[in-house]
Amino acid sequence: MAKTIYDARSIGMMMDLYELTMANGYFLQEEEGRRVAFDVFFRKNPEGGGFSVFAGLEQTLQYLEGLHFAPEDIAYLRSLGLFDGRFLDYLGAFRFTGDVYAFPEGTVMYPGEPILTVVADLVQAQIVETELLAQINHQSLIATKANRIVRAAAGRAVSDFGARRAHNNDAAIYGARACYIGGVAGTATVAAGQDFGIPVSGTMAHSWVMFYKDELTAFTKFAECYPQNCILLADTYDVLRSGVPNAIRVFRSLREKGRLTGAYGIRLDSGDLAYLSRQARKMLDEAGFPGAKIVVSNSLDEYTIRSILEQDGKIDAFGVGERMITSKTDPVFGAVYKLCAVEENGVMRPRIKISENIEKVTNPGFKQVFRAYAPDGHSIADVLARQGEDPAALEWLVDPEKPWKKISTEGMTFRPLQKKMMEAGKRTGAPETISAVRERLRLQLEREVWEEEQRFENPHRHYLDMTPAYYREKMELLEEKA
Amino acid sequence: MAKTIYDARSIGMMMDLYELTMANGYFLQEEEGRRVAFDVFFRKNPEGGGFSVFAGLEQTLQYLEGLHFAPEDIAYLRSLGLFDGRFLDYLGAFRFTGDVYAFPEGTVMYPGEPILTVVADLVQAQIVETELLAQINHQSLIATKANRIVRAAAGRAVSDFGARRAHNNDAAIYGARACYIGGVAGTATVAAGQDFGIPVSGTMAHSWVMFYKDELTAFTKFAECYPQNCILLADTYDVLRSGVPNAIRVFRSLREKGRLTGAYGIRLDSGDLAYLSRQARKMLDEAGFPGAKIVVSNSLDEYTIRSILEQDGKIDAFGVGERMITSKTDPVFGAVYKLCAVEENGVMRPRIKISENIEKVTNPGFKQVFRAYAPDGHSIADVLARQGEDPAALEWLVDPEKPWKKISTEGMTFRPLQKKMMEAGKRTGAPETISAVRERLRLQLEREVWEEEQRFENPHRHYLDMTPAYYREKMELLEEKA
Repeated sequence: MAKTIYDARSIGMMMDLYELTMANGYFLQEEEGRRVAFDVFFRKNPEGGGFSVFAGLEQTLQYLEGLHFAPEDIAYLRSLGLFDGRFLDYLGAFRFTGDVYAFPEGTVMYPGEPILTVVADLVQAQIVETELLAQINHQSLIATKANRIVRAAAGRAVSDFGARRAHNNDAAIYGARACYIGGVAGTATVAAGQDFGIPVSGTMAHSWVMFYKDELTAFTKFAECYPQNCILLADTYDVLRSGVPNAIRVFRSLREKGRLTGAYGIRLDSGDLAYLSRQARKMLDEAGFPGAKIVVSNSLDEYTIRSILEQDGKIDAFGVGERMITSKTDPVFGAVYKLCAVEENGVMRPRIKISENIEKVTNPGFKQVFRAYAPDGHSIADVLARQGEDPAALEWLVDPEKPWKKISTEGMTFRPLQKKMMEAGKRTGAPETISAVRERLRLQLEREVWEEEQRFENPHRHYLDMTPAYYREKMELLEEKA
Repeated sequence: MAKTIYDARSIGMMMDLYELTMANGYFLQEEEGRRVAFDVFFRKNPEGGGFSVFAGLEQTLQYLEGLHFAPEDIAYLRSLGLFDGRFLDYLGAFRFTGDVYAFPEGTVMYPGEPILTVVADLVQAQIVETELLAQINHQSLIATKANRIVRAAAGRAVSDFGARRAHNNDAAIYGARACYIGGVAGTATVAAGQDFGIPVSGTMAHSWVMFYKDELTAFTKFAECYPQNCILLADTYDVLRSGVPNAIRVFRSLREKGRLTGAYGIRLDSGDLAYLSRQARKMLDEAGFPGAKIVVSNSLDEYTIRSILEQDGKIDAFGVGERMITSKTDPVFGAVYKLCAVEENGVMRPRIKISENIEKVTNPGFKQVFRAYAPDGHSIADVLARQGEDPAALEWLVDPEKPWKKISTEGMTFRPLQKKMMEAGKRTGAPETISAVRERLRLQLEREVWEEEQRFENPHRHYLDMTPAYYREKMELLEEKA
């Protein structure tokens, strides 16, 4: 696996210009090697959901490892007339040498907590902002959306069919990766199969049926090529009067020749999928083909899938396109990258951004996040702590929205969520397989995340508590700034 | 310009698997070199708008020129166990040798008309579907959205700030390109500036202000680096009590030193932008800085921009991020690629896809589209015609929704919209500059497209008429298939 497109192109210039104007300013005015910490976090789950899925870490680490600027990049930057020559020389020799702490990819994540933290030289930490956010925002958005769709499908296979409506190549390919992490069974996008080892699937389009003089000829020709994987698109003319009867003729003929030994069935891509699938199922069963699969597609998402299943649609698999690959009903994941600490005399000092809007006040400091578990293994809350603190050693925690309430830690166990993924610019371990990432998510949803957080309507809100010491520190900073 | 990312990577595998399963089938079962025609068209304008903008042609042509499969691609495909060895050998030597007809990039386009037509060998024409659609759908979506936002800004500059919320790298970079075609003044995305020669802009983030011990220090440090381009982010603490007064202090100091000679001003990224910009304008004017610019950003789109301007917001420029780069309120452009003709005995015979849904019936045949103009230069309608027909030679046209009405051609002039862009796999001309493409759109909106089509609410619907001969041909095909 993992011949990646990243290897073949330089994406160092994928950044907002202000990263470079600020970096040039820091380079000229501050002492070299001044370390800072930036947190990546987000403020709300897409579509009012109860949680989000962290994805895009692998590409983020690849980017940081490979980040450099080619001579033509430097020449272009010089042509802008904005940057000092010494800064451009520095960029010409640039390598990222910072540390990265992050949740493992595929971890369930909640608003307000640092899912990834960069601790690096000020200039380096600033320069990487745009690409980190673009990668994490995109893949987390799609993984979260795909997981919603997979949950709605209630055990039936979901496949990604979205490439043609994705926001260009990367969105199709990394989107397919994120869908797979989110739990889809496979993708139609060949490049994603090749790059990430995701199972690929696909049979025929309407053009196949339109090319031949009639539908039966088209189906027969297809069955000759693919008797082992014979999913026939049944809606080019009329599903129930033509498509299904013709498919049945072809299946009969294959069976008579002893060739109906693989996957076979029909795909419906238009019309009332609940009704048509029920009728088609009946016709297929009555014709002696209870093993024929019914695959449906056409502007599906978690809402339409749930509705089709509520109407007893007889569906074996869903092909989901534009609404998953663009996360159509909520196409923006709003993770941000905020300065949380600055080294002063060798000590990391917290920084806070205050705001009129309480939700926009940042959580300051270089910190750790723990997940708190009940004895039955369900996760109850996440907890922000100062570096080095162990919440298991504490008697109580603070709910920052009701700070007068003491939350007892009795019976809770705690696991730290951020791990050191990169040290001095080098990965601390080998890349994970995408299957391991996908399985991590699946197990969390099976064992740890309450059903009440997984429902679509008014899900339970996961608490983000604080250790008393962390809470005090934040309050002191707020008083100081206000 | 135009060092492109396409040069550096192979995107041949960016396709749906069914393109290859169908292609393998055609390769094995049909005679070689059988020519077909596929049309790219779309069914409705995003967000109920009156028109859309065609973008992505340049990358489409680059893709077709460069399309090939590397040995590792063939090895991967072989590993799937789906394809005949002879077909894989054919792919290993694949080059696209078809013809491409298309609207010039930046052309205003309407539902139902073929904006691009591929005439090629059946296998070749099938294989290119996914990438053509992904590229045209993405760039047309964003160009159309950006143009709506630019129109709402009513002459004020709009800049693309969207990279961090784009759906990955390509969406940021080609999205910036599409925004520029749509009329934005520039982008913050450095790679898009480098690759396409788009003006880049950007100054500082909140992290710059948070890094320093106070806002005035941060502003002063910035002004020392960038006295010529000194846009200060004024909302980290309190816009009117701290941000604007501190900016004024810095502008005074620059003026005293004779260094206030370039662009200067403030940026507001939160709060009530209409109110804050009016107050800030007053403070800046009273302090003697009527030349200070006010730039605003924060979840802007055509609707919020219009609202801010209706409330007399004093804005010089808008920085627009996530809602433009994802086309948030309508993130899917639904162009499709449909077989419209098949060569039989040397003649292109039309193909039609019928449907229960009248809008989903395709326009058959290898055809031409003309734009009809009134004597004052406004475009009145578009016209589908059979290849070789000249609507100027006809007395009347057919409105397919009211076929009993004869539409007189008196006073109309006609211009063909599709041009031959590629012949036998080679471009027919040099690539256009992005400025030429952008200017084409601007001139059409200034001179040709009625105001009534440009408004956001219930815009006038552009007619898609037919020549009588084309209409008769379509009706005959429908009767034959029904």
